[in-house]
Amino acid sequence: MDGQGTSGAAEPSGGAAEPSGGVAEPSGGAAGLSGGVAGPEALRPLVDEVLAGLAAGARRRGGPIVPGTPAEVAAAVREALAEARGPAALRRLAELLAYGAADPADPHCAAHLHCPPLAVAVAADLAVSALNPSQDSWDQAPAATALESELLAELAESVGFRPDRAAGVLTTGGTESNLMGLMLARDQRLGPDVELNGLPGNVRPRILASEAAHFSVQRAAALLGLGERAVRTVPVDRQLRMDPAALADAFAEAGWEGATTLAVVATAGTTDTGAVDPLHAVADLAARHGAWLHVDAAYGGGALFSERLAPLLDGIDRADSVSLDWHKLGWQPAAAGVFLAREARTYASLARRAVYLNPADDEEAGYPSLLGQSLRTTRRPDAFKLAATLRVLGRDGLGALVDRCHENALRAAELVRTTPELELHCDPVLTTVVFRYAVPDPAGSDRVNAGLRRELLRTGRAVVGRTELPGHGPGRVRLKLTLLNPHTTEAELASLISAVVEAGKAQPGARGTARPAT
Amino acid sequence: MDGQGTSGAAEPSGGAAEPSGGVAEPSGGAAGLSGGVAGPEALRPLVDEVLAGLAAGARRRGGPIVPGTPAEVAAAVREALAEARGPAALRRLAELLAYGAADPADPHCAAHLHCPPLAVAVAADLAVSALNPSQDSWDQAPAATALESELLAELAESVGFRPDRAAGVLTTGGTESNLMGLMLARDQRLGPDVELNGLPGNVRPRILASEAAHFSVQRAAALLGLGERAVRTVPVDRQLRMDPAALADAFAEAGWEGATTLAVVATAGTTDTGAVDPLHAVADLAARHGAWLHVDAAYGGGALFSERLAPLLDGIDRADSVSLDWHKLGWQPAAAGVFLAREARTYASLARRAVYLNPADDEEAGYPSLLGQSLRTTRRPDAFKLAATLRVLGRDGLGALVDRCHENALRAAELVRTTPELELHCDPVLTTVVFRYAVPDPAGSDRVNAGLRRELLRTGRAVVGRTELPGHGPGRVRLKLTLLNPHTTEAELASLISAVVEAGKAQPGARGTARPAT
Repeated sequence: MDGQGTSGAAEPSGGAAEPSGGVAEPSGGAAGLSGGVAGPEALRPLVDEVLAGLAAGARRRGGPIVPGTPAEVAAAVREALAEARGPAALRRLAELLAYGAADPADPHCAAHLHCPPLAVAVAADLAVSALNPSQDSWDQAPAATALESELLAELAESVGFRPDRAAGVLTTGGTESNLMGLMLARDQRLGPDVELNGLPGNVRPRILASEAAHFSVQRAAALLGLGERAVRTVPVDRQLRMDPAALADAFAEAGWEGATTLAVVATAGTTDTGAVDPLHAVADLAARHGAWLHVDAAYGGGALFSERLAPLLDGIDRADSVSLDWHKLGWQPAAAGVFLAREARTYASLARRAVYLNPADDEEAGYPSLLGQSLRTTRRPDAFKLAATLRVLGRDGLGALVDRCHENALRAAELVRTTPELELHCDPVLTTVVFRYAVPDPAGSDRVNAGLRRELLRTGRAVVGRTELPGHGPGRVRLKLTLLNPHTTEAELASLISAVVEAGKAQPGARGTARPAT
Repeated sequence: MDGQGTSGAAEPSGGAAEPSGGVAEPSGGAAGLSGGVAGPEALRPLVDEVLAGLAAGARRRGGPIVPGTPAEVAAAVREALAEARGPAALRRLAELLAYGAADPADPHCAAHLHCPPLAVAVAADLAVSALNPSQDSWDQAPAATALESELLAELAESVGFRPDRAAGVLTTGGTESNLMGLMLARDQRLGPDVELNGLPGNVRPRILASEAAHFSVQRAAALLGLGERAVRTVPVDRQLRMDPAALADAFAEAGWEGATTLAVVATAGTTDTGAVDPLHAVADLAARHGAWLHVDAAYGGGALFSERLAPLLDGIDRADSVSLDWHKLGWQPAAAGVFLAREARTYASLARRAVYLNPADDEEAGYPSLLGQSLRTTRRPDAFKLAATLRVLGRDGLGALVDRCHENALRAAELVRTTPELELHCDPVLTTVVFRYAVPDPAGSDRVNAGLRRELLRTGRAVVGRTELPGHGPGRVRLKLTLLNPHTTEAELASLISAVVEAGKAQPGARGTARPAT
């Protein structure tokens, strides 16, 4: 018996495998599978249903967002869920999703950093769904494992890290990437697998971040057991850039308090203004005080593709870790986040061996494992759609889209500046414009701006962002346009701004009414 | 000016919105968008390219997994990434992904709990990618927000929670869901926004879980700042069920040590054997000691759809929180995890206000926000594909698929039992079969079983799972079939098991060789 047993082992690895059958003839109908040789044919009619539903829903919506109140939309959803049954349900629900959308592909939908995806990225994502590879072991995702590693090396290079020394992973977005950066910072400074409750009483961990840093920094501190109060916020300038002198003070203050500064988070592209913290100055201070530097470039990372804007990120290569998000300024459907660490060795605290995923003898035999790169176990290869997009459009092609959105932001800012009812907060940095409908009384201003935005939402005319400037008290509410649609025309920008002005005028307390109160 | 200003506000909310144009004529070609009225037509030719690439790749693969070593696969990926450029790149890369896959739709691919997705779920997921809604604010996802809430209420009911009192969220999988359960447990017991390093020295948090619980429990403890050593493991029986007497001892021991038991994790469907911990006995002990009960039903949750298997989960309604994963026994493409908390009030420590996402005046005006339900910010509506699947197949339809996989596990176990070269570990509980190629010498057994699995992988003949039983020392390596393909036939099971036996015989040290060593 043993004598015959080597035939399998001797088979050339490139040769055709024994066909195992089964997938050539999946049960059709509702229980058909998307994989195998027959999967694409099982998918085709269902994809047609979905595309027909999406088109019908978009036509019925007829604008940037479903009109109506949340209660009205919820009632429509409940009705569809109660009625949709059997084969027709797929089209009906796709139509519902499209009808009930806020569609970032509509030029009047410009409130958030969820971008309108490129059709090529969406089509690529379908391949991922159909095959369902999972990145937690090689034998669930052979090609996808290699592809993610290749893409990460490209991205590491683009931020100026040495690809042979860096490490990283695709994430669900900036929130997860920021968490990972702060977790590695904690584990580098306090030791891997730290029991925080067992630390000496004089170790009081601190994280420094600007007032305009993303709230996920506080959230990460809470999750990591450090508590939100471990985050000390550093003041910003009008554009919402961190003030380096204030950061130096914050370091000094932590020192006086006997606190241990684990990390500094620099933001490269604040959610509101797109401002980039002074990366070199922050890196100098972090280095002087031995603190981990995490750069949150979830939004600003898109600038890396643009020759014109890339210099804004000068200094990002000095970060210990970086967050990037290609579902923001990268036109990918969510999720397409990336976490990068400059030095792979700092990643050690995440390493993990699971006997059913990455046994030591498999790794010795050359089977790589990405399990220790991620906080997740099952993990969809979100790298695939970005890799496909980069091959189809090229980096230059993506850069041109970034530039078009940036130009639109400059145009929109100019329109705001020349519209008497509106007040621009500051010049755009990336692709957002922060402004308000000008009402002299601070409380009135907040009411009018918040109210006009809800009115635009309710009537389905426009989806405009709303935010608040750092600080306290009334008068801080601002409107925001997040211009992520590269095909938006100047006429469409003008129409969007007109819609804001009209809705503003219609608010009780707007201009005429408010003026006497000042 | 003011006198005219109410026209916008007076417009009926159900009325047609002003068309904003723009999306009807997106730039075609590579930079076309997937949204708007024109998106579906922009998608159609690209989807055709992807389906053609998937079919070609599956044909070229010709079996359950790409044949070859990891280095050979990586070289093919590098070559394709270097060569693929322009419009043809999409098809080439889709073909690469399919060729380089481990395809769970192939009956000989049965190593992990990543299931072969249903074509209907994959098609539904395309609608989500195309529209790119994000669940972090209503104005990015009006219908999807309502749809997730409706689906969660259905799922809460199916585990026996009161939908009007429960809360939950879609997650990336069991790892994130387990983290959420343990985070809420920590915050319930130690206070919200706890600074662990500031706790009194006598507070020593502990988590109890079985030896066969998922490794994400240890990972969560590390992430949460409790340290992996905070997890005390409780012994299991041969089927890998937690021993309730041992759990009682573990509680007592924690008490002697002055430790605070935050939580008990009960597993409903261990990764290897599908064993379900004795939920009522565990719940009784958790209640007696005031510990949070988290039930990890990431794998076993699928049994809820099956009349025959649902009784296995009896007692799950006593959990404080539950993990479910529909990308395991639910035939969804990843990610389709669910986290549920029995009482919404216990969720409070996650609540968060972001001025640009869920301002207080918006919530007062009736705009709901799911931001405070999730650890993430940007979040794809993974609820949609599951809701669509449930409407197309019905709960009974999904239950029938669960039953077919369970029956296949029983058949495969019988085949193993009657194959002299193989040794069954225990009767299947859900859809997995744990066994080994019998070699008397423990170290030889491990070598042969690990080696035969790699040989099947390398030649592309079969993808079989490999795991280790709890304990120490050699002889614990086992093979595993994870039978998640409902269309697999008995003949295909027999052929899969034959492939294992043939590969086993071919291993140096198998039977004949090993016997003298005992």
